[in-house]
Amino acid sequence: MSSATSSPPIILTGDRTTGPLHLGHYVGSLRNRVALQATHEQYVLLADAQALTDNADDPGKVRRNVLEVALDYLAVGIDPNATAICVQSALPTLAELTLLYLNFVSVARLERNPTIKDEIQMRGFGRDIPAGFLCYPAAQAADITAFRATLVPVGEDQVPIIEQTNELVRRLNRQAGCELLPEAKALVSKTGRLPGVDGKGKMSKSQGNAILLSTSNPQIEAAVQRMYTDPNHLRASDPGQVEGNVVFTYLDAFDPDADAVAELKAHYRRGGLGDMVLKRRLTAILQETVAPIRERRAELSRDPDFVMDVLRSGTAKASETTKRTKEAVIEGLGLFRL
Amino acid sequence: MSSATSSPPIILTGDRTTGPLHLGHYVGSLRNRVALQATHEQYVLLADAQALTDNADDPGKVRRNVLEVALDYLAVGIDPNATAICVQSALPTLAELTLLYLNFVSVARLERNPTIKDEIQMRGFGRDIPAGFLCYPAAQAADITAFRATLVPVGEDQVPIIEQTNELVRRLNRQAGCELLPEAKALVSKTGRLPGVDGKGKMSKSQGNAILLSTSNPQIEAAVQRMYTDPNHLRASDPGQVEGNVVFTYLDAFDPDADAVAELKAHYRRGGLGDMVLKRRLTAILQETVAPIRERRAELSRDPDFVMDVLRSGTAKASETTKRTKEAVIEGLGLFRL
Repeated sequence: MSSATSSPPIILTGDRTTGPLHLGHYVGSLRNRVALQATHEQYVLLADAQALTDNADDPGKVRRNVLEVALDYLAVGIDPNATAICVQSALPTLAELTLLYLNFVSVARLERNPTIKDEIQMRGFGRDIPAGFLCYPAAQAADITAFRATLVPVGEDQVPIIEQTNELVRRLNRQAGCELLPEAKALVSKTGRLPGVDGKGKMSKSQGNAILLSTSNPQIEAAVQRMYTDPNHLRASDPGQVEGNVVFTYLDAFDPDADAVAELKAHYRRGGLGDMVLKRRLTAILQETVAPIRERRAELSRDPDFVMDVLRSGTAKASETTKRTKEAVIEGLGLFRL
Repeated sequence: MSSATSSPPIILTGDRTTGPLHLGHYVGSLRNRVALQATHEQYVLLADAQALTDNADDPGKVRRNVLEVALDYLAVGIDPNATAICVQSALPTLAELTLLYLNFVSVARLERNPTIKDEIQMRGFGRDIPAGFLCYPAAQAADITAFRATLVPVGEDQVPIIEQTNELVRRLNRQAGCELLPEAKALVSKTGRLPGVDGKGKMSKSQGNAILLSTSNPQIEAAVQRMYTDPNHLRASDPGQVEGNVVFTYLDAFDPDADAVAELKAHYRRGGLGDMVLKRRLTAILQETVAPIRERRAELSRDPDFVMDVLRSGTAKASETTKRTKEAVIEGLGLFRL
């Protein structure tokens, strides 16, 4: 334990490549990654193999979005010199460790994983769940341990995956008779999931309620205009409700001036503050946030070779790291080595 | 279809590396491989990764038996210049294809596989079945298709695995819109499973009723001496039963003179032929069969570097073949390529 706690934490994060990222990702994780890369060893995984676990009928979508998400990463300021941006499907070691780990976890245990249970229900899979989807906690355990990651930024709903990873780590360490792999800590985002502009559930491209990192200024303005506020706040002079008011949720997440937001909330509650004033403020803030990202993204998208080079060099670094871990696992468990 | 049927079949076979091979393997599969290698492209897979699916608590056994089984292969005459002998765990492509295929098969479909159902029951797994074990039909589909094998020698009980492989192949071909992968044909061994010397079930090292390929002449004699015959055949002059008589089953399998065996059976049935005569004949035949194998095996076991070289060059050839297939799958399904 002492070696794990004394060495600086290694961070692994990533995204399934099923669509370009949006402001929800920006406040929930991307901003943190940019901040953390200055002080931590960080790997960001383009999880295209995991994306296939429930998109096997549309591999083209998964393929195209590898580059889209990579553009998002670079555009928000993830620095390829500080963070290794790597492609999951280009790291065979992750597949090898996944298959190995599947031997150390029962089908029943995978089915009991609360994240898996929720997602099976959400996707309406029932027993027709693809086997790859049921197995993905083992794949995530492979990802996390292959990088020897000890700090994994996740949403609240993904915490059981980290717990299951640590269960596997303890099982393997017990069998190896040494600390073969470190346990990982979930770094749960303080920002809750950003709601969609319609206030219905979380922001999601497939729900059509998302502001992407490539959204234009007029599109941002239009999105904020149709943003859900307080349906009972009919006139500016009426007292309004702040809770569940999406405009205020966004101001909390994006407005750099927390005191001003607190004052606006008080004003809104006692009446006399119109939605239009708030929406103009939010529009300006979101436009300021997105504009440099969008412009950088557009610029980078004209140079796909550069982006591919970034992915190649990040994946090469990741390949070395993950292969070292595999060698240690082979040695620690006493597997065959050719 | 025409291209698949007109090109010469490629054979994939192999063994889980859980113990050295015995005469049951010899008559059931090894002899055939030696015969087939003259006319076919043949890969023989040391399935150590699959062996781990139900031996995760004893990787040492699986590791040690990679070399033991390789010695058996070379000793019976599998020629490394004609047959690529390769190590499953040293072929990451197989793990990558397995994980990919798991996305194309449902948990329910894996659970319905009769081979898996029987083996789960046989091993008393219940719901505590290791996930890797449930997934092994996808791993076998990966093995078979990675080598583009079109002919797979199997026991009767493994036929559902080939059927499930072909189901996957059809699914992938349909999605790719071309014959991305060939379907495989099961080559079911005409020789049934050789019974153990005790007549209880099939020959199996773990049952202690096996004659290994390293068994000495006195051990062979002792094994034949305790072989199950007809318990009602008390005196040589009594009529005896041939059916279920292990000595005759072995004579059928090993005696090169089928006419002589037919005569012995007739004589035994009408009475006047003692068990000892038969057992002496069988002992001599088995000793003649095993002696050259045992001697070659002992010789090879003194040169583990040679055996490792054989495995390295066979695995290198297999690596090229399987990587070509993976590239074709990436292309055909439109997956991301770095």
